[in-house]
Amino acid sequence: MIYDVIIIGNGPAGLAAAIYGKRAGLSTLVLSDSPMAGGQITSTYEVDNYPGLPRVSGFDLGDKMKEHADMLGAEYASGRVTEIVDNGETKVLKTVDNGDYEGKTIIIATGADHRKLMVPGEKELTGMGVSYCATCDGAFFRKKTVAVVGGGDVALEDAIFLSRFAEKVYLIHRRDEFRGAKVLQDQVKAIDKIEIVYDTVVDEIVGKDAVEKLVVTNKKSGEKSELAVNGVFMAVGIVPNVSNIKGLPSQDEGGYLIAGEDCVTSIPGIYAAGDVRTKLLRQVITAAADGANAITSVEKYLNGQ
Amino acid sequence: MIYDVIIIGNGPAGLAAAIYGKRAGLSTLVLSDSPMAGGQITSTYEVDNYPGLPRVSGFDLGDKMKEHADMLGAEYASGRVTEIVDNGETKVLKTVDNGDYEGKTIIIATGADHRKLMVPGEKELTGMGVSYCATCDGAFFRKKTVAVVGGGDVALEDAIFLSRFAEKVYLIHRRDEFRGAKVLQDQVKAIDKIEIVYDTVVDEIVGKDAVEKLVVTNKKSGEKSELAVNGVFMAVGIVPNVSNIKGLPSQDEGGYLIAGEDCVTSIPGIYAAGDVRTKLLRQVITAAADGANAITSVEKYLNGQ
Repeated sequence: MIYDVIIIGNGPAGLAAAIYGKRAGLSTLVLSDSPMAGGQITSTYEVDNYPGLPRVSGFDLGDKMKEHADMLGAEYASGRVTEIVDNGETKVLKTVDNGDYEGKTIIIATGADHRKLMVPGEKELTGMGVSYCATCDGAFFRKKTVAVVGGGDVALEDAIFLSRFAEKVYLIHRRDEFRGAKVLQDQVKAIDKIEIVYDTVVDEIVGKDAVEKLVVTNKKSGEKSELAVNGVFMAVGIVPNVSNIKGLPSQDEGGYLIAGEDCVTSIPGIYAAGDVRTKLLRQVITAAADGANAITSVEKYLNGQ
Repeated sequence: MIYDVIIIGNGPAGLAAAIYGKRAGLSTLVLSDSPMAGGQITSTYEVDNYPGLPRVSGFDLGDKMKEHADMLGAEYASGRVTEIVDNGETKVLKTVDNGDYEGKTIIIATGADHRKLMVPGEKELTGMGVSYCATCDGAFFRKKTVAVVGGGDVALEDAIFLSRFAEKVYLIHRRDEFRGAKVLQDQVKAIDKIEIVYDTVVDEIVGKDAVEKLVVTNKKSGEKSELAVNGVFMAVGIVPNVSNIKGLPSQDEGGYLIAGEDCVTSIPGIYAAGDVRTKLLRQVITAAADGANAITSVEKYLNGQ
């Protein structure tokens, strides 16, 4: 079967595209290697900025969007895409594990993923105290001491979240000011359990079978010191999820697919929606809007406009 | 008081901006001449394409967004803006009825409104059978004969909605093909009560104290005829809600405020979000995304970026 549109990814951008695709009467397949719909937000404790659904858990929001697409009859397949072959009239998606899929148009909505800190001990101790998801792993650190590394919204949110479980939370940031929302900064500063460690970078994560301590350096004084912790949560940003796909449209220096609000990429018939594309603001609401815009561009393309 | 940001309009774009503004720690005022939050959607029977909230009534969705902004502490004022005075560092909004308001930045999120057909009888019989809102007035036409004029999503939705009340629905479209979503076209064609009248324009609406008939012309044959109806619902598009405001940023030929995804207009510190700006797709989800993007641009501006 040749689909009108195949969407790679089942996060907010992909599911919004599925909703709009089905409402436009297009045969629509959502292809993803993740069994859980929602993308990055599935590991978000609380999403409080999707207008109309205050204080929803990321897991629930992903579920609601999936149910919405289901109600409209979207189809799903499981597979990790390794290559996009552009045959002009149609595009073929090769998957590593589940054969090929053919579509007249493709929407790449693979999202973005957690950036690694790239320090000794990080890889070795992942799952043994090193985590990229406070929501997922926070509860394991009840009455323990943990650190959060980062300075954006996620780092601040993680510190607040972890303070509900942990005895002590170090919030380690390489600058002397946070990038994250003021409202979150104010909350962080009001919680006694959270100790903010400004101007500081992590050099090494030390531990045998579990994280035991961090070796850190104060960038202003140059002073090295150690922080005894049982766990460390990385919140140092995201990178686009495209590194293992061949045949991609043009990317910027960060790897993001170059596309504007209309989601149009350098290859006719291939669109980029959500966190994976170059854009001002990566949020659930802007990802979902991309899904709608991408389908509008798909319809124009299919109509020969 | 000088607000960090004043948002003109309380539809999805304005309320999303309020949510993001408050989360960013900005003093945020929503200024509107409409007592009901939600903008255009308040008169939409069912919004089925806001991802995560399937089959929500427009009224409820507006309410949910307002509640969300309320939870975060957004402020509101009632007033119809007549002029934006740009004093550089701050902007002053003059209202016809409620004094002046001052802000460091302004987000214009006034939305768009129903286009008039501009035919004899339209103005005279508005509220006496001529309506721009099937959701609002449809129930008055139980077991009556009505017409819908238009060919987009709204016209198709209105015809479907009205077929639940009326005995007969004429769907009058000036072209031989609809612009609206395929899924809606299929529904319209499956309902016996709906008679599609292609290639036809309305010349006049006739009636004394209530609509009695439409005079129409088939554009292909040139033939004039009459349709006896008790009501006629206009669904012929929208126009931006800016005609009565002085001091606006640059507009396009349709009156829309010229702004890209970042909502930046021709005047520094003034932003345009939602249906009122030039954009690919005017939908609740893209309006809400604009609110988020506009606040990001506001923050950059206030930070001197």
